Amino acid sequence: MIRLRLDLAYDGTAFSGWARQPDLRTVQGVVEGALTQALRLPEPVSITCAGRTDAGVHARGQVAHADVDMEARALDLESLTRSLRGLVPDDVWVRQVSVAPVGFDARFSALSRSYSYRICDMPTAWEPLRRHDTLRHPRPLDVAAMNEAAQPLLGEHDFAALCRPRAGASTVRRLLDLACARDGHGTAVMTVRADAFCHSMVRALVGVLVPVGEGRRPRTWPAEVLARRERDPSVTVMPPHPLTLDQVAYPDDSEMGARQAVTRAFRGE
Amino acid sequence: MIRLRLDLAYDGTAFSGWARQPDLRTVQGVVEGALTQALRLPEPVSITCAGRTDAGVHARGQVAHADVDMEARALDLESLTRSLRGLVPDDVWVRQVSVAPVGFDARFSALSRSYSYRICDMPTAWEPLRRHDTLRHPRPLDVAAMNEAAQPLLGEHDFAALCRPRAGASTVRRLLDLACARDGHGTAVMTVRADAFCHSMVRALVGVLVPVGEGRRPRTWPAEVLARRERDPSVTVMPPHPLTLDQVAYPDDSEMGARQAVTRAFRGE
Repeated sequence: MIRLRLDLAYDGTAFSGWARQPDLRTVQGVVEGALTQALRLPEPVSITCAGRTDAGVHARGQVAHADVDMEARALDLESLTRSLRGLVPDDVWVRQVSVAPVGFDARFSALSRSYSYRICDMPTAWEPLRRHDTLRHPRPLDVAAMNEAAQPLLGEHDFAALCRPRAGASTVRRLLDLACARDGHGTAVMTVRADAFCHSMVRALVGVLVPVGEGRRPRTWPAEVLARRERDPSVTVMPPHPLTLDQVAYPDDSEMGARQAVTRAFRGE
Repeated sequence: MIRLRLDLAYDGTAFSGWARQPDLRTVQGVVEGALTQALRLPEPVSITCAGRTDAGVHARGQVAHADVDMEARALDLESLTRSLRGLVPDDVWVRQVSVAPVGFDARFSALSRSYSYRICDMPTAWEPLRRHDTLRHPRPLDVAAMNEAAQPLLGEHDFAALCRPRAGASTVRRLLDLACARDGHGTAVMTVRADAFCHSMVRALVGVLVPVGEGRRPRTWPAEVLARRERDPSVTVMPPHPLTLDQVAYPDDSEMGARQAVTRAFRGE
């Protein structure tokens, strides 16, 4: 048995998200199909990813693992990579295939996930070419106000106010980065990094800062929402298409197994 | 009669280029149709642009003008902009509509045009989301070598070697910028600026530098090709889809008419 690590990028526009679903086109379904075919496996292989992206969400640095029942010496990584790249459709790309280090688990070994969220708030700067990964927002945003409001959210908190609840699962997360900056064309790009995210948490974080950027809410509002620790109906979960999973960080190979054990214990899985 | 200035952006993927053609979907056709409808003009209006982009080429900062037979006081620019934005399809955007200053001509008053060309030469950095405006190139490029080779092309030259010939038209152009740099994700982005470009000249300029970046041609080769002053079949005209018209520069309003006269005299039109 070999565990493979797959580094993937995709345009989420035409996918019903990452997770395999019957009769729907999903990234997991497409990549599992290609891997099964490339390795001529008798049974469909199953892959596990670091961040299960929703429908319409893109990835630049998704990471997944797959356990394949073959011997290491039978594996030619270069030709596997080439054939996978040929088998996946245009909107998916296999950046790299490698043999995972001992103790690696794409999901549980991850130290952090980084996402970005693109908002164009100037009608004179809108780029139709980027309409699939950028939100056109009708009101100007005060980026400095958003950054100030983001500060108290950093660190370890119970993010229940910004998560879709799931029975029995912890909503405590460590938010490592949350900042907004304008790119070279004037689009506001929010970057968010945390040890892990609850479902729809990134889009709720953006949704709690945008009203501050518009001046409709005070800079203290996001921290107040967070402190309530329960889902707040006044927080808008922003649309998925401007969101991209940029990067997943892992520890050094020697700490991979230890990290996995810690995460599993913490998440209770 | 009022001359309007239109600032436009578009995703060129689904267009047969800028120029109106019967039975084909073109940017000019779409924008002329929207303008005619928005102003309820009895006859179809005709628009003139600064840079006639080929099929598949995008624009961030295209500029066009249109002469409309109406009185200035009957014109409400804000409502015209709003209705144009509603009438054009998703892959076109009207960034701004204004009344052109005296002497303004989108084509002949322009001082320079800037384009960018995106090439991803690292298979581990390919972004499927950018496949409509980025070339996936199979060999690594030495950006420093390309920049060195570009230096002697700057300034005023006869670019006949890098132009599709057109009877009677001058191929003398002033190349103002030609440089390559990597963006935050590793993609090589070439930026090109000139007073004007002959047909397919930007793509031939990229085509003369890429073999240098690959190490297949010496750094002196582009200057040698240029000096021959005739179309060189060994120069590849690169594909159109990674090309974007970024910006068109105009003089101050007071010099608009003078600039137009100079350009018309020089181009013999």
